Amino acid sequence: MDYNATTPLDPEVIRAVTEAMRDAWGNPSSPYPAGQKAKDIIGAARESLAKMVGGSTQDIVFTSGGTEANNLVIHSVVRHFHKSDASKGGTAKHPSPAEGAKPHIVTCTVEHDSIRLPLEHMVGEQVAEVTFVPVSKVSGQAEADDILAAIRPATCLVTVMLANNETGVVMPIPEISRRVRALNQERAASGLPAVLLHTDAAQALGKRRVDVEDLGVDFLTIVGHKFYGPRIGALYVRGLGEQTPLHPMLFGGGQERSFRPGTENTPMIAGLGKAAELVTENCEAYAAHMRDVRDYLEERLAAEFGEKKIHLNSQFPGAERLPNTCNFSFRGPQLQGRVVLAQCRMLLASVGAACHSDHGDRPSPVLLSCGIPFDVARNALRLSVGRSTTRAEVDLVVQDLKQAVGWLEGQARS
Amino acid sequence: MDYNATTPLDPEVIRAVTEAMRDAWGNPSSPYPAGQKAKDIIGAARESLAKMVGGSTQDIVFTSGGTEANNLVIHSVVRHFHKSDASKGGTAKHPSPAEGAKPHIVTCTVEHDSIRLPLEHMVGEQVAEVTFVPVSKVSGQAEADDILAAIRPATCLVTVMLANNETGVVMPIPEISRRVRALNQERAASGLPAVLLHTDAAQALGKRRVDVEDLGVDFLTIVGHKFYGPRIGALYVRGLGEQTPLHPMLFGGGQERSFRPGTENTPMIAGLGKAAELVTENCEAYAAHMRDVRDYLEERLAAEFGEKKIHLNSQFPGAERLPNTCNFSFRGPQLQGRVVLAQCRMLLASVGAACHSDHGDRPSPVLLSCGIPFDVARNALRLSVGRSTTRAEVDLVVQDLKQAVGWLEGQARS
Repeated sequence: MDYNATTPLDPEVIRAVTEAMRDAWGNPSSPYPAGQKAKDIIGAARESLAKMVGGSTQDIVFTSGGTEANNLVIHSVVRHFHKSDASKGGTAKHPSPAEGAKPHIVTCTVEHDSIRLPLEHMVGEQVAEVTFVPVSKVSGQAEADDILAAIRPATCLVTVMLANNETGVVMPIPEISRRVRALNQERAASGLPAVLLHTDAAQALGKRRVDVEDLGVDFLTIVGHKFYGPRIGALYVRGLGEQTPLHPMLFGGGQERSFRPGTENTPMIAGLGKAAELVTENCEAYAAHMRDVRDYLEERLAAEFGEKKIHLNSQFPGAERLPNTCNFSFRGPQLQGRVVLAQCRMLLASVGAACHSDHGDRPSPVLLSCGIPFDVARNALRLSVGRSTTRAEVDLVVQDLKQAVGWLEGQARS
Repeated sequence: MDYNATTPLDPEVIRAVTEAMRDAWGNPSSPYPAGQKAKDIIGAARESLAKMVGGSTQDIVFTSGGTEANNLVIHSVVRHFHKSDASKGGTAKHPSPAEGAKPHIVTCTVEHDSIRLPLEHMVGEQVAEVTFVPVSKVSGQAEADDILAAIRPATCLVTVMLANNETGVVMPIPEISRRVRALNQERAASGLPAVLLHTDAAQALGKRRVDVEDLGVDFLTIVGHKFYGPRIGALYVRGLGEQTPLHPMLFGGGQERSFRPGTENTPMIAGLGKAAELVTENCEAYAAHMRDVRDYLEERLAAEFGEKKIHLNSQFPGAERLPNTCNFSFRGPQLQGRVVLAQCRMLLASVGAACHSDHGDRPSPVLLSCGIPFDVARNALRLSVGRSTTRAEVDLVVQDLKQAVGWLEGQARS
């Protein structure tokens, strides 16, 4: 029950990757049929990705994964700020109120490391300024009011994840985007740079509807291995290169219209396209199934342990939550998340993000940000169900947890 | 006969990728067995890569491909130059002769675009200076004398490919490295930064012995899809992080010791490891077979067309050449490479690098750099044989070329 860490590849995805490895190994840049075949497969996958997120085919750029996509957005807006700032300095009669300032980025305190760390790096290097807006301790969300209040004249990007990986809380991106767009009209009138909006949709895709028009975002990060696809990703860029600027981090053979060069990973791209197709076709069914099983899990936990023994860490009033994620803590001084998991015989889950698995017993900074008390956060378990998780598995997991907690409490008493 | 553009995946590689997709989909950062299994597979692949190039396991960093590896080296040395320059400014009593200068990089005129373009970008941005040393028109090589002569006080990197992708000419990296190392001793005495040496071994691996000790390089780029492996790559860094600095381009979840974060592409890494194993075991046999077939091709071309009709574009006196590459031109005003290929019924080959396939009829800049006359370069064909190319296929190809040339010359006469 750790499907937020990664997911198995759907058998149809494995088939698509394997077939492309066998039959489409040509270099997509080669002009003869073997190259054309690979190129066609990449084109079809690009269409499938665009369809999944409701965008245009030409607005999809394949990347090596979510980390690259997130870093690319940040790199790109900072570079664009300097480029446009520099060009302004040469021509504008009225200096922009942002002139001379460093590019400023607004984000929130519960972002994935692939957002937080590149931003902190830029702050350390003094090439950008960043406001980390605290999420609301009531809703677990980055509130639009708080995000908007953090915007300055030199702000060039707001980046807020679509759904948090630990709590499953869905952020109010449509509201943020409506307000940023309204603000951009005022800013244009004052000669200020537009604020672009990025969302990292890694955890949301395949679990709820994701539509770039509804969301109103300029950039959206796609990560295959969170929706039963391969370990590559993509970036959606609204009106790529025309409406929204994208400055490449890599330079080379001109692939992906030079926005992301390097010989294309045709098999993985084919698999990503297949995974996207499955999401487009079945997302509602996946979500309904996961919600049913996750809700059953929470019912069973309450029934077996009593509501007082359990603290649900991700049920915030008024906030939508991913249908597959259940973050909860047992109450008790001996029941740290890691200790409980170690006593489980079957349950495989995590205490937070997988890439933090070496952080020892410190409680999750995400949960602390959301206002979960220290002692509760230290005991947190993140259970995330998948497309094939059953109620019978939930029953086994709850029994497993019961024996683990019982044993730990017995030890403490003895 | 275009195996320098890309290669099919070896069936054992496909098996390794497919097995890992099925059985090792866990997140390598997860502490439970499914994560550990993925981590072990990645560790084994890292060992196989290290063994293939004669380096240490901990000196291998997986990347999304050769383009990323090459860009990473360039990014890293420039950043290191600024870091060490800055730190010097604060402490050294005697300012370094390189102080205040921009970092300078030496390369040659026949590098792949994933070296040339990031360097040109840095020049355009005025963050680095670059000398593009012309290759010798006699040997087709970047000569050690010329490379050494281009080194300045602020030089921080020499990057010269191990073997050229169009001519197959092998560059004198061991000689360059011996001389750079000797120079570095003098430079250290004068407080100058060390010159690091990088080679892009994309075209050499799997076709000839590649050993980082013999080569004496600090960085070496590995590209899977040129040696029957998948479309990812790796970078060898001598004494990674201790002896040789590496500054990441991406920031995120801490994978690859934070030198290259992002959830690892376990299946492709497993495949890359298998491809490396095959090279370690069989490289001599692969090379001997390719040399036999390629030499037979050149014999047959000479026999069928006569030596006067054919110009071999990559036989330079004194220069070693990859065993699989044959770059030649038919002599004749109607016999441009692209035109000849279009008349072939079976032969699939190229006129230069695949990523330049949209460059129209301009002759290859690589061949022009090597001193091949314009009219000859315009007619160039690059035939590159693979592990399974047979003499019988060579016979068919030569017949195919014969009918194509015959038809084109007939058209011209009529």
